[in-house]
Amino acid sequence: MTPAVQSARERSLLASELEDAWPVLSPEERLEGLRLLPHADAEDLLLSLPARDQADIILGMAPGERRSWMRLLPPDDAADVIQEAPDTEREALLALLDDPTRHEVGALLAYAEDDAGGLMNPRYARLRPEMSVDEAITYLRRQARERLETIYYVYVLDAEQRLLGVVSFRELFSAPPEKTVRDIMSKDVVTAPEEMDQEALSRLFAETDFLAIPVVDAERHVKGIVTVDDIVDVVQEEATEDIQKIGGMEALDAPYLDVGFWSMVRKRAGWLAILFVGEMLTATAMGYFEHEIARAVVLALFVPLIISSGGNSGSQASTLVVRSLALGELKLRDWWRVISREAFSGLVLGTILATIGLTRILVWQGLFGAYGEHYMLIALTVSVSLIGVVTWGTLAGSMLPMILRRLGFDPASASAPFVATLVDVSGLLIYFSVASVILRGTLL
Amino acid sequence: MTPAVQSARERSLLASELEDAWPVLSPEERLEGLRLLPHADAEDLLLSLPARDQADIILGMAPGERRSWMRLLPPDDAADVIQEAPDTEREALLALLDDPTRHEVGALLAYAEDDAGGLMNPRYARLRPEMSVDEAITYLRRQARERLETIYYVYVLDAEQRLLGVVSFRELFSAPPEKTVRDIMSKDVVTAPEEMDQEALSRLFAETDFLAIPVVDAERHVKGIVTVDDIVDVVQEEATEDIQKIGGMEALDAPYLDVGFWSMVRKRAGWLAILFVGEMLTATAMGYFEHEIARAVVLALFVPLIISSGGNSGSQASTLVVRSLALGELKLRDWWRVISREAFSGLVLGTILATIGLTRILVWQGLFGAYGEHYMLIALTVSVSLIGVVTWGTLAGSMLPMILRRLGFDPASASAPFVATLVDVSGLLIYFSVASVILRGTLL
Repeated sequence: MTPAVQSARERSLLASELEDAWPVLSPEERLEGLRLLPHADAEDLLLSLPARDQADIILGMAPGERRSWMRLLPPDDAADVIQEAPDTEREALLALLDDPTRHEVGALLAYAEDDAGGLMNPRYARLRPEMSVDEAITYLRRQARERLETIYYVYVLDAEQRLLGVVSFRELFSAPPEKTVRDIMSKDVVTAPEEMDQEALSRLFAETDFLAIPVVDAERHVKGIVTVDDIVDVVQEEATEDIQKIGGMEALDAPYLDVGFWSMVRKRAGWLAILFVGEMLTATAMGYFEHEIARAVVLALFVPLIISSGGNSGSQASTLVVRSLALGELKLRDWWRVISREAFSGLVLGTILATIGLTRILVWQGLFGAYGEHYMLIALTVSVSLIGVVTWGTLAGSMLPMILRRLGFDPASASAPFVATLVDVSGLLIYFSVASVILRGTLL
Repeated sequence: MTPAVQSARERSLLASELEDAWPVLSPEERLEGLRLLPHADAEDLLLSLPARDQADIILGMAPGERRSWMRLLPPDDAADVIQEAPDTEREALLALLDDPTRHEVGALLAYAEDDAGGLMNPRYARLRPEMSVDEAITYLRRQARERLETIYYVYVLDAEQRLLGVVSFRELFSAPPEKTVRDIMSKDVVTAPEEMDQEALSRLFAETDFLAIPVVDAERHVKGIVTVDDIVDVVQEEATEDIQKIGGMEALDAPYLDVGFWSMVRKRAGWLAILFVGEMLTATAMGYFEHEIARAVVLALFVPLIISSGGNSGSQASTLVVRSLALGELKLRDWWRVISREAFSGLVLGTILATIGLTRILVWQGLFGAYGEHYMLIALTVSVSLIGVVTWGTLAGSMLPMILRRLGFDPASASAPFVATLVDVSGLLIYFSVASVILRGTLL
C-alpha cells in the first residue's frame, strides 16, 4: 500500500488526493481508494476516468457489486467499458444493464470503436416540427428529467424519424412562445455518417465549432449524437498516435507507465529492427567505396556529418507534411506545390549548411592545417554533397508521406527515422559519387 | 482568379464550394468569394474561420464595410481578431464595436492569447442562489434572448459577484419548480485561474469532461468561461507545435501552405544549423580516430549503422517521454522509474540489434569472406558497441526531455534530431573505444 492510501485511511480520503495518486496506484489500491471515498465522490471519480480504467475497476469488484456501477455509466461509456473487457466477461457485463440500455449498448457495440458510430450517444433530445416553442420547452423539461445525455441541440424529426432540422437550446429559449419549432429550426444540419472515422470527425468538429453533431444513416435516420467533450479525447489520442509513429515506433494505445515492459519493448523493437536492417545498406554502400576510403581516410571523417544533415532535413520535411495531411491542411492534389516548394527549400537549406561546412573546413585548415594540400577540393566535395543530400532529404521527406497516403497507408508511418534511414543510404551514394568526380586525379 | 471562383460567378456560389477552395485562394479571391455568397452564408463562413483568416478578411474590406462584420463576432473572437491585426489597425478595429462590447474586449486584450484569460468569453449565464427553479428558468430565457454565448452551465454568484456554485441547465430543467437554485446547485466547482496556461487548461478539460469551465480571479470573481469547443482547437494547436518541435524545427503557428516561403525557411534553418554545428563534433571525433581508421578501414564501414541505431532508439525514447509529459501522464518525480525502465529497455533493444548485426557479419563472411581473418573480433566490436550505443541512446533520449523540463524549457525542444545529434557524437566515442580495446594487437 502506498503512503498516499495509508495516510488517507487515517483521515478521510479526499477525492482530489486519490486522483493525484491515481497513475502510480496498482489496480487493488485504486479499488481500495475508491471504497474509502464518500459514495458520491467515488461515482464522480469513476465517471471521469478513461474507459480502460473504468473496466479495470468494475472487473476488480465482486460480481454482486458490479451492477450499480455499470448502471451508473451512460450507454456510450458502458459500450466502451465492455469493449475494454476481456471477451469472456463481455456478456456478463452486458447482462447487468437494464433492458432498454442493454438494447442501446448492444447496438453501439456493433460499431468500430473509432468510428462515429462507436463514439456516439443514442440519447439525444428530439422534437416534432409542429410543436410550439412553449410546448417544446415543456416537453424537453420532461425529457431532461428522464435520462437524456445532452440537450444543447435539439433535433427535429419527421414521423419516420428522419432528420428535418436542428434548433439550439438557446434559440428555442429566446424564440417567441407562439412560434412553431419548424419556424425557428435550421434545415442546414451538419451530420456525420455512421462509419466516419474519428480523425475525420474531429476535423469536422474543429471546422464547425459545434458542441454536438448527429450521426445519421443513409436514410437520414438519427442514430445518436457525438458530443465535443468526447472529441477532445479523440484529438489527444490521435495526436499521440501520430507522435509515436513519427518517433519511429508503433502507437502504444495507453499511458507510458501503464504499458507492460515487454509489450513496450515489442512495440519499439519491431520498427527498430526494420530500420536497422535498412541501415545495413549503409555498410554495403560504404563497402563499395572501401578503396576510396583507404586512399583518402579524410573522406570518412565527414560521413556522419553529411548523412545526419540529410536525415535532419528529411525529418523536418516529413513531420511537416505528415501533420498537415492529418489536419487536412494539405491534400494529395497539392503534391506539385509541395514538391516545388520543398525542392527550393532544400536548395536554400543545403546552401546554408554548405556555407557553414565550407567555413569550418577553411578555418580548421588555417588553424591546424588539418586537411593537407588538397583542402580546397575536400571543402568543395563536402559543400556540394551537403547541397545534394539536404535537397534530396527534403524532397524524400516530403514526398514519402504523400506516397504512403496515396497507397492507402498511414502517412505517419513515414516516420522521421524511416526517412532518415532512406536518406542515410542515398546520402552516402551522393557523397562518394561527388567525391569521385571532384577528387579524381588528386586524392583518389 | 482561380477556376473555382470563376465558375462560381457564373452560377451562384455555394458556401461549401468556397470552403473547399479556401486554402488555395489568395486574400483577394477569398474576399470576392465571400461577397458572392448569400449574406447569411457569408456570415456563417466568417464565424467558422480561424482568427487569422477573419482578421485578413475584415482588414481587406473598405473601412466603411468593416463595422457590421466586427459586430458579428462574439467578444472572445473579436479580441482574437484584434490581436491578429497589425498594431496600427488595432485601435480602429476596437472603435468599431458598440460600447459595452468594446469594454469587454478591452478587458480580454489584457490577457495573453494562450492563457485561460485569453480564451474565455465574458458572457456567461448567472443566477442568484435564492431564486426558485421556475424563476431561474424565466430569468435565463430573458438572458438568452440578449447576447448570451452559452447556457449549458449556469453559475450562481453572491451579492459580491463571487462564485457560490454551478447548476447545469439539465439539472435546472429537471428540478422540481419550487426548489431554490441553492438547493440544487453543486458547490464543488472546477475553476481555472486567469493565468492558467492553455495546455494545462486542456488537460483539465480532458480530465473532467466538462463543456465549460469558469475562469476566476484570486477572490473567486468569475471573469468569464472557457468552452470546450475552443479547447479542441487548442489541443490540435498544441499537438502540432509539439510535433513540429519533435521534427526538429520551430513551431510554424500556421498551416503549411499559408506560411511564406522565407519565413518557413527561417523556422527550419535555425535548428538545422544548430544541429549541423553540433554534428561537426562527429568530424572532430572521427579525426581523433583517423589513425585507427587508416589501419582498419573496415571500422569506417559500420559507422553509419552504429550511430543511426543510437539515434533511432534515442528518438523513440525522447518522443515517448515528451508526449507523456505533455499529457501529464509522467511527472518529473517519476524520473527514477523512467531511468530504470529505459535502461533495461535499452539493454534488451541493444541486444536484439546486436544479434541481428552479428548474424549479418557472420553470414557476409561465410558468403563473401568480406571481413578477413579477424572477422570474429570485428563482429564482437560491432555487437558490443551496438548494445552500448542503443542503451546510451535510450537513456539520453528519455532523460533529456525531463532535464529540459526541470530547467524550465519546453521538453518538446529535446526533439528527436537533437537527441540523435547528441547520440551520434557519443556513439562514435563508444564505438572507437570498444574497437581499441577488442582489436588492440590484431587490427589496431
